[in-house]
Amino acid sequence: MSDSIIKEINEIFSAKIRLGVMTILSINDESDFTSLKKQLDVSDGNLGAHMNVLEKAGYIEVDKSFVNRRPKTTYKITDNGCKAFKEHLTQLESIIKKVK
Amino acid sequence: MSDSIIKEINEIFSAKIRLGVMTILSINDESDFTSLKKQLDVSDGNLGAHMNVLEKAGYIEVDKSFVNRRPKTTYKITDNGCKAFKEHLTQLESIIKKVK
Repeated sequence: MSDSIIKEINEIFSAKIRLGVMTILSINDESDFTSLKKQLDVSDGNLGAHMNVLEKAGYIEVDKSFVNRRPKTTYKITDNGCKAFKEHLTQLESIIKKVK
Repeated sequence: MSDSIIKEINEIFSAKIRLGVMTILSINDESDFTSLKKQLDVSDGNLGAHMNVLEKAGYIEVDKSFVNRRPKTTYKITDNGCKAFKEHLTQLESIIKKVK
């Protein structure tokens, strides 16, 4: 697919929820599960599954802690995640330029 | 999901192959199956399945004819497809602006 207009499209970032998560984690230093859930308006199970995909790909890192005796899960984008996401966005940008 | 950054992301256009097809059909008046297959470097079965999804959604229209006794399948983007794809790209554009 060397010359294809979609060669740099990363399927991991294609799913709507994962695109949203990566956008939020690119803009903010970190974000917790509850905040991501609210911002993206998704269920616990749905968001959890997508976070697992991103973590397994090495694109985000997870920190689990307790705040006021309540568990808190915080996410950060990794360097690899940042690089891969920017490449994905650059390819999307070139598609937008072709069409618009 | 009224305030969500992904509310206008259309899952139908999220899949890499369908994004590629919509881009090609947005740029060109029409395209045939063989040409799309070559440009996107995908198998017959894979492309066929994605074209069905786009057709069922009303985003593309299909014309089957014979050229030199060989069947030829040609695709065009519909007005609805054009409108929906532009909305999708506008949302992607706003995500890119936030991140970059």
